[in-house]
Amino acid sequence: MNPTPATSLQDIVGHAKEYGFVFPSSEIYDGLQAVYDYGQNGVELKNNLKSAWWKAMTQLHDNIVGIDAAIFMHPLTWKASGHVDGFNDPMIDNKDSKKRYRADQLLEAKAEQYEADGNPEKAKDLLAEMGRLLSAEDLNGVRELIISENIKCPVSGTTNWTEVRQFNLMFSTQVGSVAEESSLIYLRPETAQGIFVNFLNVQKSGRMKIPFGIAQIGKAFRNEIVARQFTFRMREFEQMEMQFFIRPGTEMAWYETWKEARMKFHKAIGLPAEKLKFHDHDKLAHYANAAVDIEYQFPFGFREMEGIHSRTDFDLRNHQELSKKKQQYFDSDLDENGKPYGNYIPYVVETSVGADRLFLATFCNAYTSETVGEGENAKERTYLKLHPALAPFKVAVLPLVKKDGLAEKAQTIANSLKSSFRTTYDDGAAIGKRYTRQDLIGTPFCVAIDYQTMEDDTVTIRHRDTMEQERVHISELKEKIGYQVAMERILEAI
Amino acid sequence: MNPTPATSLQDIVGHAKEYGFVFPSSEIYDGLQAVYDYGQNGVELKNNLKSAWWKAMTQLHDNIVGIDAAIFMHPLTWKASGHVDGFNDPMIDNKDSKKRYRADQLLEAKAEQYEADGNPEKAKDLLAEMGRLLSAEDLNGVRELIISENIKCPVSGTTNWTEVRQFNLMFSTQVGSVAEESSLIYLRPETAQGIFVNFLNVQKSGRMKIPFGIAQIGKAFRNEIVARQFTFRMREFEQMEMQFFIRPGTEMAWYETWKEARMKFHKAIGLPAEKLKFHDHDKLAHYANAAVDIEYQFPFGFREMEGIHSRTDFDLRNHQELSKKKQQYFDSDLDENGKPYGNYIPYVVETSVGADRLFLATFCNAYTSETVGEGENAKERTYLKLHPALAPFKVAVLPLVKKDGLAEKAQTIANSLKSSFRTTYDDGAAIGKRYTRQDLIGTPFCVAIDYQTMEDDTVTIRHRDTMEQERVHISELKEKIGYQVAMERILEAI
Repeated sequence: MNPTPATSLQDIVGHAKEYGFVFPSSEIYDGLQAVYDYGQNGVELKNNLKSAWWKAMTQLHDNIVGIDAAIFMHPLTWKASGHVDGFNDPMIDNKDSKKRYRADQLLEAKAEQYEADGNPEKAKDLLAEMGRLLSAEDLNGVRELIISENIKCPVSGTTNWTEVRQFNLMFSTQVGSVAEESSLIYLRPETAQGIFVNFLNVQKSGRMKIPFGIAQIGKAFRNEIVARQFTFRMREFEQMEMQFFIRPGTEMAWYETWKEARMKFHKAIGLPAEKLKFHDHDKLAHYANAAVDIEYQFPFGFREMEGIHSRTDFDLRNHQELSKKKQQYFDSDLDENGKPYGNYIPYVVETSVGADRLFLATFCNAYTSETVGEGENAKERTYLKLHPALAPFKVAVLPLVKKDGLAEKAQTIANSLKSSFRTTYDDGAAIGKRYTRQDLIGTPFCVAIDYQTMEDDTVTIRHRDTMEQERVHISELKEKIGYQVAMERILEAI
Repeated sequence: MNPTPATSLQDIVGHAKEYGFVFPSSEIYDGLQAVYDYGQNGVELKNNLKSAWWKAMTQLHDNIVGIDAAIFMHPLTWKASGHVDGFNDPMIDNKDSKKRYRADQLLEAKAEQYEADGNPEKAKDLLAEMGRLLSAEDLNGVRELIISENIKCPVSGTTNWTEVRQFNLMFSTQVGSVAEESSLIYLRPETAQGIFVNFLNVQKSGRMKIPFGIAQIGKAFRNEIVARQFTFRMREFEQMEMQFFIRPGTEMAWYETWKEARMKFHKAIGLPAEKLKFHDHDKLAHYANAAVDIEYQFPFGFREMEGIHSRTDFDLRNHQELSKKKQQYFDSDLDENGKPYGNYIPYVVETSVGADRLFLATFCNAYTSETVGEGENAKERTYLKLHPALAPFKVAVLPLVKKDGLAEKAQTIANSLKSSFRTTYDDGAAIGKRYTRQDLIGTPFCVAIDYQTMEDDTVTIRHRDTMEQERVHISELKEKIGYQVAMERILEAI
């Protein structure tokens, strides 16, 4: 469907591990499936992305504030949101192999096979029938479809299937030690509900007036049956969500506004327009009256990175019903008849981006492997073309040689910069090799100290992407580099 | 023991909720015990504290890098760390009331009663005996002590006690959907192990040389039996930990270095020396050969905010044994005989601060309620004396009145500042009331736009703590305020 991307996921996974961006979790114990740890460079890149999003939301907009709600929430929250009853995957077990599968994925694999065999019509019919059965919650029908399609267990090779059951994707745990008072709680499967249950607390204590937004960054957890594609689908992941509370009837205008605003953000952090696209949802979730994804072209194709959803008053209304606490806002603005709009449950337009997916997109996009030079001098060169404000280190200070006071001079310069931005010092190899080390982790600037520095206090700044060098006075460094690596450069581009 | 602090915890809890710093979690469902949400101002203060710590660690030190390990870890991690077997509280049930208690806390309450009754010797003896029994894991002895001391259940009033059992404080959940492959995993009870299992990944991919440190900020979870004192002891909390890997034998020197460095940090963010003290551990944890707390004087007394521990090679050695993966470092530095130190399992000095406790300390310290003026003009004034770099908003831009173009002028000024630092605009009440609003959330600077501004582009900056005003030109604002609110001011003071 898409042209094969130049970079494979394997290259990305390899580079991420080798240069301290992403490690498999608990690797010394052979890892934990679908869980990853961010290494020393990955955590800086991810934190910078989170900071860019946070500032774009809460600093650039007077009417958006943040919160940080706990992962643990009252269990009724998930009753109100629909997750207790509806957040399921249909599972089926093979009685011979004792293996469990997602029923819909077995059928999808069959459809792909029809497609590969040159039967696109059969594939389409099968998927349509599956969609109809799942929408009708006809699990027995799903099972019969699997059997009539003669789908076999890949392990046992038999069609000896159990019934299809719904499997809830929420993780649960017991809280409280007092035996008779301990209760089942869930690890939140999304951060949005932490915003909804705090809607009135924030609105009142912050004297917020509609339209206004509440932003949040935090972990969420889903017991994914098939977790795959590196950090794209993990069991523990991080969301950056903003719920924008508005007057009912204005939702489509705000939906369009946020669609454009969010696309602009992704371009401002350096993702190219040609790798981004909107994908409208054909089928809407139960809570939405409009929904679109912003997709990025990962090495495995265009996939969802962010969702923008018009959620109506679904969540606040359900919380109101279940908690018996009014989730209303009094709007004193005047309508066309000159009367205040009065009390209503606000509508919500949500923007929800996966921090780990944004990280992966940024990392994939930055990864550059190219040939420089020609003929005999041609060499492969790999570097991370990260926006300077996102790079783990902003500058590396490198003495040409260690001797003759150059190392001490370089350290003095590094020390003078490090309370302003993240600076590293390296004197451990030939200068070319040290430039390469910085290229591989995306450091935008290398400052080299040479013998001329000892005479006139000038240094060279070497630019990562162009490899061009310029000579500047030491006294100019802090301002020159500081300007380019400041998060303000991203904020100004939004 | 301590002089009664001027501010009560009740004042703090009330202010935190009213002004959007901390809300009870899931409050519309009547809350979740020992879990709190950070509101729109709290999240900014907490993020700024986390950023100060993070930069103090990873930006000021060339040899400290960060990571962000997942909350989910391989379960063997907690076997190696000792948490599966040893992270317990001794619990006892009263058979009549069916209530469960921590056995040690029942005994401690009895000792406090002896103390109050003028029997300090009896109190001391009781605590000593309890300590002896718990160390010997003599749970039956603990039960007999409770009975012989005639300790009654506060609910039923009887001494009809069950046996004493160990209750593990880790939360657990099931991961994986495949029935026969699903496994019990834990929510991490501390972040430190995420650093230990990544020790070699970071050391190798970052070419780190001992001594070096790995820093991490993240959530941890403990099923506390008695959670109390607001955000001081929560079931879900956030840690900021740094593990410093060193050559065995150098641990006491590094322990002293980090003790001093961490104390300096707390002073640099504005906590006063007289509210901070070291508290050496009388009894060391199984993994430590030296341990000290930095205590802050909360409204409920001096309590632990941070711990500095010399952990020896306890963790890495146990991970090596259980994982069968060598956790060694080759030290090429030369010893006194001119030979390389060679291979060893590094020792570790840890600094571990509770982000929520640091937040609470900062908030309590900033909370200031004082009388200004005299006689008839005397008024109570409440404000948050936060370091400008920590304040949720850096500046509020306030037109004296809305009319005559002052509001538009003020908005233009606010817009010109907001890509540089967090700026708010308010035109909603008399200017004095708006100053008060900013005082209550700790905004260090208010910029007032008046009629003179319209003539000569000058404004007043009103300083939160002194309430003094100075007149400056608009063109000076960004630099003047930007300088004072920059995190660099904290970093330079460390």
